[in-house]
Amino acid sequence: MKSAILSVGTEILFGQITNTNSVYLSQELNLLGIDVMYHYTVGDNPKRLAKTIRSAFEDCDLVITTGGLGPTQDDMTKEIACEILDDELVYDEAAFENIKAVFTKLKRVMTDNNKKQAYFPKRAKIFYNEIGTAPGFALENNGKIIICLPGPPREMKEMFELKAKPYLEAKSEDKIYYRMLRMFGIGESALETTLLDLIDEQTDPTLATYAKESECGLRVASKRKTKEEAKQAVNNMIEVIKERVGKHIYSYDNENIHQVVAKRLIAENISISCAESCTGGLFAETLTKTPGISKVFDRGVITYSNQAKVEELGVKQETLDKYGAVSLETAREMARGIQKKTGSRIGISITGVAGPDGGTPEKPVGFFCICVVMDGKEEAQEFQSRHKDRTANRNFSMLCMMHMIIRLLNE
Amino acid sequence: MKSAILSVGTEILFGQITNTNSVYLSQELNLLGIDVMYHYTVGDNPKRLAKTIRSAFEDCDLVITTGGLGPTQDDMTKEIACEILDDELVYDEAAFENIKAVFTKLKRVMTDNNKKQAYFPKRAKIFYNEIGTAPGFALENNGKIIICLPGPPREMKEMFELKAKPYLEAKSEDKIYYRMLRMFGIGESALETTLLDLIDEQTDPTLATYAKESECGLRVASKRKTKEEAKQAVNNMIEVIKERVGKHIYSYDNENIHQVVAKRLIAENISISCAESCTGGLFAETLTKTPGISKVFDRGVITYSNQAKVEELGVKQETLDKYGAVSLETAREMARGIQKKTGSRIGISITGVAGPDGGTPEKPVGFFCICVVMDGKEEAQEFQSRHKDRTANRNFSMLCMMHMIIRLLNE
Repeated sequence: MKSAILSVGTEILFGQITNTNSVYLSQELNLLGIDVMYHYTVGDNPKRLAKTIRSAFEDCDLVITTGGLGPTQDDMTKEIACEILDDELVYDEAAFENIKAVFTKLKRVMTDNNKKQAYFPKRAKIFYNEIGTAPGFALENNGKIIICLPGPPREMKEMFELKAKPYLEAKSEDKIYYRMLRMFGIGESALETTLLDLIDEQTDPTLATYAKESECGLRVASKRKTKEEAKQAVNNMIEVIKERVGKHIYSYDNENIHQVVAKRLIAENISISCAESCTGGLFAETLTKTPGISKVFDRGVITYSNQAKVEELGVKQETLDKYGAVSLETAREMARGIQKKTGSRIGISITGVAGPDGGTPEKPVGFFCICVVMDGKEEAQEFQSRHKDRTANRNFSMLCMMHMIIRLLNE
Repeated sequence: MKSAILSVGTEILFGQITNTNSVYLSQELNLLGIDVMYHYTVGDNPKRLAKTIRSAFEDCDLVITTGGLGPTQDDMTKEIACEILDDELVYDEAAFENIKAVFTKLKRVMTDNNKKQAYFPKRAKIFYNEIGTAPGFALENNGKIIICLPGPPREMKEMFELKAKPYLEAKSEDKIYYRMLRMFGIGESALETTLLDLIDEQTDPTLATYAKESECGLRVASKRKTKEEAKQAVNNMIEVIKERVGKHIYSYDNENIHQVVAKRLIAENISISCAESCTGGLFAETLTKTPGISKVFDRGVITYSNQAKVEELGVKQETLDKYGAVSLETAREMARGIQKKTGSRIGISITGVAGPDGGTPEKPVGFFCICVVMDGKEEAQEFQSRHKDRTANRNFSMLCMMHMIIRLLNE
């Protein structure tokens, strides 16, 4: 099946918001084995909307729209869908009740024009919206399908996951199952080389690699008569992959590394504190993105100045003088210092040169040292980021910290 | 002038990268007074590329493409541009020398196929690329213009700013000048109401408001016979705006609030340290994004646990017991504590409920307290974010911290 994704919204054409809906839908459709041929964005203009959908249907069987389902006169997506797939809008009492219920839940006042949102193409499969006021739908005619989803990303994602995805899966005779593995510490080309024979077979399951900011993803997908069969095939393949690159895999379900670390610390009730220099708080900020982390995260210190390293962490002035602030020795004393001070089971530290200035021939921009201590064990390591950019260097070094924790927990 | 932005790249259709080029170009074109009617993304496919450009030219005078200028067989953008605007590719020696020079600068080896990148439409205005290997160009025929820019965002932006923008500006008889004001602490609708008479006049300069994650932007633009005249008109209008909403404006040149704070602290050599609870290091991390900040940023502590607040900052157990960890009283003691401990001129603190859990009727999710101390002055304030989401709450509270610093510096 070939598809196009159409975002409706003037604010995207003004550059006021970034179109993340298209990114999400592209990933999901590709995972379902549906090719994405076009992304389009148009404003709230019926003529250009209709023209674009007609143009998409010249090459595609499926058009997914996001946005333009609101209650105002501008919101014309449903009318256009009817025009193109030869249907008419009718009032749907159940949809109206659903919209009313959502307004009550959100403690918002319903206005008259919201009734417009209860009209749908007669033959449409309606997707009720549990968390917003605009229901979506799927409409099919002569092998052409339009799926209309709301614009707010949270609503769009929930509706796609719970309603549109099962609808699309049911269209296919075969059932698809896939998992997205995430890895750290191995480059995309090294990963490809290691798995080349498996990738080249490319029958089923298929393997596809993705590169993503210092990380790698590997999609393992299978299409079989039943979902159970596909699942079995994927999981068997993952066992083979594990033998080759298992030490780099930190998630089998497309989770971020910081979520994996946070969830594991919470689940195993392992307390942690950190001492950061070059990352300026990025490690603590990222780790504490996960709700519930306060159960195990005691504190962090960001010791930018040498004085702060001495006062807060007990780093010896002698160590700073002899090896410099950016050194394995300083990183070790920082990690030991924060661990001793807090009594947390894990103490982790980082010191480095984020750039753009401050590099030397021995310690260039992107050079940094990390140390983790846990239950008497201590691991310290030097890294050299290939990035030139301050933000990219900080991000890469934060990922390295997360990965060192996982390695230590796995040992 | 009406325009379309066309991104060429299969990786966008796979959802592997977010299309930030379209966001940037949309903002820039709108600022130049050029309407953006469509965003398109297509893969490296000549047929769909040609179809899309032809479709755009039905409504638009200008198509800007990004990507597809590489050296491989897949990169067909130039060929298609020729086909549509009736031109032919010719070899350009100067472009070849330019490409060779960039390879030398980047210490990369040039391969034979890079010669393809030195071919351009005969009538094209070539845009040399100083930081990457793919030059861009503008080609015009019968009032239709195609501008082709490279895909990597850094190269695209530099080429747009230095080459394509002047090219487009020269197309217009009138000269445009604009400034983008950024504000905090005033909502978009309140801003509109306050400036309604000025907005309604809408002759010249024109005013346009933008809402952006807890902030507001205001574009003031003028189109006159000379740039000097336009500049004068914009700056006169800004004086009027300043009188009405001046206290909310933190930048007249579209800077982020954290850049404004960091640059000012560095320029005025004002040392700062921070104590964070609910933001988990986000304030320190954001402030230290600006290079050179180590000159004034001494340290930060992230005191998640009550014990950490007591040990690191000298918050009294009595205060925590009586008022709770999330209270103005605790925020005051945290700010005083970090200031006293470090001797920094500014001490700033935050404590709050980021969510999704931990809210109470008196202190719901999104409630937080900030305190700033500086040179004996002390300001403490309660805030209630309207967001439900942990990330949005943390981000909003970090912006509030930045804004409180600016207010204190301005006093």
